[in-house]
Formats: sequence, structure tokens, C-alpha cells
Amino acid sequence: MNQQYSSALLERAVDEFSKLPGVGRKTAMRLVLHMLRLDVGKIDAFTDAVSMLCHEVHYCSVCHNISDEDVCQICANPMRDASTICVVENVQDVMAIEQTMQYRGLYHVLGGVISPMDGVGPGELEIDSLVDRVAQGGVEEVIFALSSTMEGDSTNFYISRKLKDYPEVKLTMLARGMSINDELQYTDEVTLGRSLVNRVPFTGK
Amino acid sequence: MNQQYSSALLERAVDEFSKLPGVGRKTAMRLVLHMLRLDVGKIDAFTDAVSMLCHEVHYCSVCHNISDEDVCQICANPMRDASTICVVENVQDVMAIEQTMQYRGLYHVLGGVISPMDGVGPGELEIDSLVDRVAQGGVEEVIFALSSTMEGDSTNFYISRKLKDYPEVKLTMLARGMSINDELQYTDEVTLGRSLVNRVPFTGK
Repeated sequence: MNQQYSSALLERAVDEFSKLPGVGRKTAMRLVLHMLRLDVGKIDAFTDAVSMLCHEVHYCSVCHNISDEDVCQICANPMRDASTICVVENVQDVMAIEQTMQYRGLYHVLGGVISPMDGVGPGELEIDSLVDRVAQGGVEEVIFALSSTMEGDSTNFYISRKLKDYPEVKLTMLARGMSINDELQYTDEVTLGRSLVNRVPFTGK
Repeated sequence: MNQQYSSALLERAVDEFSKLPGVGRKTAMRLVLHMLRLDVGKIDAFTDAVSMLCHEVHYCSVCHNISDEDVCQICANPMRDASTICVVENVQDVMAIEQTMQYRGLYHVLGGVISPMDGVGPGELEIDSLVDRVAQGGVEEVIFALSSTMEGDSTNFYISRKLKDYPEVKLTMLARGMSINDELQYTDEVTLGRSLVNRVPFTGK
């Protein structure tokens, strides 16, 4: 046991908390001492929630979004437009798009982007299952909503090649340009340059 | 269930994490999604450590420091100087002093300072048990190592009054003044003023 800790139990809990991303030993200690002041019932609720999530979580068999059932509630919802699939990297991206309230179609969670530097090839991602979904028919549009990075762009390109046998399916990507409410002088030069090259007709909006 | 979450289990885990101090919902989500990527064994180690700590932790019956046994290893260590008691607010303060490696005596953890504004009176703190320890004899010095705030100073004063029947016990407090390596021009005026008033003989150190 480290000299600094007067309790092995305390040290173990601090060790565990400090393994979390962005949590150092000082923060871990603060969190642990906070928990020590709570009722035992609240602690049990915490550990139970973490344990339940990690033991019982499902991923949707259609779109691979996190879910409590075999098919997530977005895929199972008959009100959603099943002819549109939005391709995203991860679960947070689904939430971010849902929060905009601008999208009524379905999703496909790849689980990342192709990144040879990080050892992520197409085989690690849910690309084949996306092609299968398109092959089953009924899909009119696939929206690429990946990060606007080199890896995101490569992944878009790779998937578009995989879908070349389905020319009837429209492939689109998220608009890129200045952020809403951004001041022009503070927009980075690459974004500004692209916004200029890819300028769109003025519609009065 | 909140529209944003596709899984009630996920939402519950995020809820629990966001109850921790300094953890908002975005950070909670990041932590939870990190945990989801871990092996089940690592999750069990985490929940087990938290659960064990909160169910089985002891506080030392002598000094009230956190401990695995009824008497903590500092109080139980015959190599420590039992004639000196350092009075601190909380468990972190014990660790901070232990890390200096400058102290070989025992501790007494008050559990806070007297603060009428926060509803903390002397009765909520381990002051009577400190007086009992002194009354049992063998104590030569009590060091006040509380925060240098109004509340800390009031608590020092309150305890010193409680110990007035033991004039043979020396009462001392931590030195206050400029921090080591502080530049004079950046030292706050109250600290600088006090350092000047309470100047000490130059010893060449």
C-alpha cells in the first residue's frame, strides 16, 4: 500500500476512478471522498447503474446504435422515414443529430472511421452491414455524416465505392462551411476557403 | 425516457455519473461510453472497489482518519511520536501533511471547522474526543493545522479555550506567510502584511 493512503480500500477506489479518461488522482480522490459522504443506498444506485449498463447493454442489430432491445427504438419507430440512412461514427453523433430535431430518417453507426494510423481498417467497421441494408432495397438516400477530417473523407469515399452497384441510391454529405453565428475574420482559412469555393445560390434565407 | 437517449440503461448511468461533483452531463456521457468499451472484468473491479469502500470503510476510533481497521495505521504505529497531535479538518489534509514527510506525530481529524453560516457547530466536530485524548495525558503539543480562514481561526480559538485546563500542553499553529518560491510582487496584500508584522529572526536558512 502506498504510504500516502491510510486505507487500502480508499486507495483501490481512487485507483479505479483515476483510470477514467480525464480523471487524475486528485480528482479521483475528490470523487471518492464525495461518495463516502453519501448514503449507502445512493452508492448502490450508482454501482448498480454502471454494472447493469455494462452487463446488459445491447446494440441495435440494424443500425448498431446503443439500445435496450435487439432493435433500437429509432429503427423500430414506424413514423421514421426508412428510406433515408444517415451514416455516423458513433453513438454520440446519433444523439447530436437527434437533438437538432431536423432529421426523421434512420441511422447507421459505423463504430469509427477508417484510420490506418490507428490500425482501424474497413473490416473493423460496420460497413458491410450498411451495404447489406442498401442491398435489401427501399433505401433512397444515404447521408454521410462523418467528421470532416481526412479519415472521415476517406471513409466516405470507401463506402461510396462499395455502394457503386446501387446508382439509384442518392449519396449526400453534410454541408460544410462557416458555422452559424461565426464571424468571418475568426473563421479558419481552410474552412473559409472551402466556403468560398463551394458557395451556394443566395435564396434570401 | 429522455428523447435524446436510445437506451434507458445508458441514461441511468449518465444520470448517476452526472451527480458526481464537477461532472456535467457531457463529461458523464464520455465516462460512461468509455466504460462501455471496457471488459466486463474491469467494470466489475470498478463497481466492486466503490461498493467495498462505501460499505466497509472504517474511521479510526482514535484520530477519526479513514482506515481499514478500528485503529488506523498511523495511530497504531509505535514509531510515531504519540506526544504530538496535529489537528486537521479532513482526510485529505492528513495525506497532504504525510506527503511532506516532515511530521512523525499523530493526527486528529475534526471533520470540518466551526461555521455557523453552514450550520456546523462545535457539536458536529470531533472536538470533545480531542479534549478526551489530551485529558488522558501523554500529550505535549497540539498543532493547529486548519485552513487559514476566519472559520479555521475561530475553531483554533474554540479548541484552545477547551484545552485551557491543560496549560502543560503546548499549543502551536502552522506558520503563515509567503509561499516558498513566491514572488513578493504577486503575494496578496493580506498575506504580505501579516508576513511583515509577524517577521521572524533571520537565521541564515
